[in-house]
Amino acid sequence: MSELINILKANSKEGIEYLENLKKRAEGIENDVNIKVAEMLSEIREKGDSAVINFTRKFDCESLESLTVKREEIDKAYEEVDEEFIEALKTAKSNITEFHEKQKDKSWIMTKENGIVMGQTVRGLSRVGIYVPGGTAAYPSSVMMNALPAKVAGVEKIVMVTPPKKDGTISASILVAADIAGVDEIYKVGGAQAIGALAYGTETIEKVDKIVGPGNIFVALAKRSVFGLVDIDMIAGPSEILIVSDENGNEKFIAADLMSQAEHDKLASAILVTTSQELAVKVQKEIKRQVESLSRKEIIETSLKDFGVILVVDNMDEAIDLGNKIAPEHFELMVKDPFLYLGRIKNAGSIFLGSYSPEPLGDYMAGPNHVLPTSGSARFFSPLSVDDFIKKSSYIYYSEEGLYGVKDKIVKLADTEGLTAHANSIKVRYED
Amino acid sequence: MSELINILKANSKEGIEYLENLKKRAEGIENDVNIKVAEMLSEIREKGDSAVINFTRKFDCESLESLTVKREEIDKAYEEVDEEFIEALKTAKSNITEFHEKQKDKSWIMTKENGIVMGQTVRGLSRVGIYVPGGTAAYPSSVMMNALPAKVAGVEKIVMVTPPKKDGTISASILVAADIAGVDEIYKVGGAQAIGALAYGTETIEKVDKIVGPGNIFVALAKRSVFGLVDIDMIAGPSEILIVSDENGNEKFIAADLMSQAEHDKLASAILVTTSQELAVKVQKEIKRQVESLSRKEIIETSLKDFGVILVVDNMDEAIDLGNKIAPEHFELMVKDPFLYLGRIKNAGSIFLGSYSPEPLGDYMAGPNHVLPTSGSARFFSPLSVDDFIKKSSYIYYSEEGLYGVKDKIVKLADTEGLTAHANSIKVRYED
Repeated sequence: MSELINILKANSKEGIEYLENLKKRAEGIENDVNIKVAEMLSEIREKGDSAVINFTRKFDCESLESLTVKREEIDKAYEEVDEEFIEALKTAKSNITEFHEKQKDKSWIMTKENGIVMGQTVRGLSRVGIYVPGGTAAYPSSVMMNALPAKVAGVEKIVMVTPPKKDGTISASILVAADIAGVDEIYKVGGAQAIGALAYGTETIEKVDKIVGPGNIFVALAKRSVFGLVDIDMIAGPSEILIVSDENGNEKFIAADLMSQAEHDKLASAILVTTSQELAVKVQKEIKRQVESLSRKEIIETSLKDFGVILVVDNMDEAIDLGNKIAPEHFELMVKDPFLYLGRIKNAGSIFLGSYSPEPLGDYMAGPNHVLPTSGSARFFSPLSVDDFIKKSSYIYYSEEGLYGVKDKIVKLADTEGLTAHANSIKVRYED
Repeated sequence: MSELINILKANSKEGIEYLENLKKRAEGIENDVNIKVAEMLSEIREKGDSAVINFTRKFDCESLESLTVKREEIDKAYEEVDEEFIEALKTAKSNITEFHEKQKDKSWIMTKENGIVMGQTVRGLSRVGIYVPGGTAAYPSSVMMNALPAKVAGVEKIVMVTPPKKDGTISASILVAADIAGVDEIYKVGGAQAIGALAYGTETIEKVDKIVGPGNIFVALAKRSVFGLVDIDMIAGPSEILIVSDENGNEKFIAADLMSQAEHDKLASAILVTTSQELAVKVQKEIKRQVESLSRKEIIETSLKDFGVILVVDNMDEAIDLGNKIAPEHFELMVKDPFLYLGRIKNAGSIFLGSYSPEPLGDYMAGPNHVLPTSGSARFFSPLSVDDFIKKSSYIYYSEEGLYGVKDKIVKLADTEGLTAHANSIKVRYED
């Protein structure tokens, strides 16, 4: 029986090919979908609610009556979930809120003695839309991770959109999570039609300032199309985990963590980089053993085969460099003294240090956000945070004396740029 | 002779129509350009330097030999500008750097007694590309405003791209500003080809993590196309100024400031909102008088006619509300006690307080960035800042005891979401 995951020398021909192939995972935009999305958006812009309802009836629920989720539906959802689930969500909420509170930026001021005052103000956005995918899997944790930073940022109104099921309902776990997270309004609409409604506004759904949350290709392309008219969160691609371990790594833990990432979808990538050939072989065996008891075995096997790998390196320097090159969404460091390397990890969404900080701890409970830059974009994107739900304004107050001190320099620069009305605006103040 | 700018009651039919029309100013994307840009990008991706050089020879400079600007060209540029210009740039640099230093976020840590350590690290991006438009007008101030926040953020390498003139040179003022701002590499390439080179990398130009800077429609669409592969700055539309003034406003200053915005381009919008009909009429007259001496008279007259207006309101509450609704790039508050209203301005790129803080002060000299959210996007975008040139990673270190305390709750949430490999990753740690 063949192995579920390959072991390659990182600097071998095959190792290098693997890395090249990994980059291509995120490529390929569907032109047909783009055109379809453009048509849908323009229809929503023109016709508002009636277009949104028509699309929802066509794609999700033929018998849909109202887009708005009523309080009774949320109350009923609470009856459908158990106490243990609610308690778990509440603990998560408390941890997530505590961590995100520390991200809050303050407004500030600077002053100079000649009467100059400048600074920057920080405010929460007014209205934010959160997209929550429908389909078979419901992810209440994702509702929490998108809504709570907005709450902490002081967003006035948080609006959630999610496609209804065929029977017109929404998963109880999603409704309960939204309610606990403090979502203000919930609408039964998904796909590009939901993005259009949030961006343009309809009779029922007021337009928002920013749209966040993951979705399928229709949702992603619609978000990109409305960028500028509203703000959007980062573009999410297939996700990944990279585990760096030396000979001290526990093969059971590593195998389990690789598979927790691999089960997400067939494009997910799980990578172990290790200095120990012995550990590599042990992990390979553990995966084979553990996968048998997992419900998403088939997805795990496919993703490990296509995008999983164990790369053997000569030393920790090489391991860390490789990690920085891949810039993974999740970077687990399972070595004896993980803090020793923290300062050298340049590119990663979230860093998990030591043997008792597995990715699912971050996905559900620890506090940092689980919405992270994927597919190497940790080179330039950051985890979703309070920063994403605020806006800043700068302010300038100059005294007559303060402006006088720099007036000639401003005029010089304006004249160099050929902008004489700019120069005039300074000169006119000292004419008499 | 007709007036250059209309005076309307803000809540009249015409006042409301004006505001509706203003919104439409930013609309209209060229589909043909989109296709052309996609073709160019794919050619650059495939052929690298040779495609970039071909496009540059075709569009900008037939005789182009090398993409790279040499040190000698920068030295020569210093000889072409005068000392006064260099001094003005250096003062601007000092003020801009001082202001942006205050924006820097710190890495942080939080700890709990049961061995839990979490936090967030902050790092400058590795490589940033700055686009600087060519054409007749050269804007050295724009080079400073884009490069200096990157410098303050700790970006390792700042790369500038700008189209060469027909004779293969670049404006001396641009080269000097780039050098003073600390730009590391300069290339003679503009348009979509420059964006492609920065996003994909070529033999000469190494790929970057983020591209910032304004450009024409080709540049804007190319940036949008590569978003995700690299980060980009906000989408810029036509710009605007909104001045709020009561009867204390100085008509000369107000007229001059309105025109300093109007001279940018024909789509620029200059708006005065005032509680004083008397002031409105005086400003109207002042504009007519002052415009005669301005070199960009024709642009000013067109933009004032099409998108300029003086709106008369009943009181300051109405004025501030209108300002928040328009969410202007530049918000000047020329009233007796401007700080009284600072806390009520929710949507604005930069706020200019009092009679001696005209927009050109902020454009060139004060310190805050002049790259600001335009066309109402101050509802959700912020001024360009150090934030735009850093990335954050979160980190999590849990002890065995710490994880034990939350393990059942994580398993509960993972099971609810049907992710058994996530649950397994926790369980496997406490199996024996």
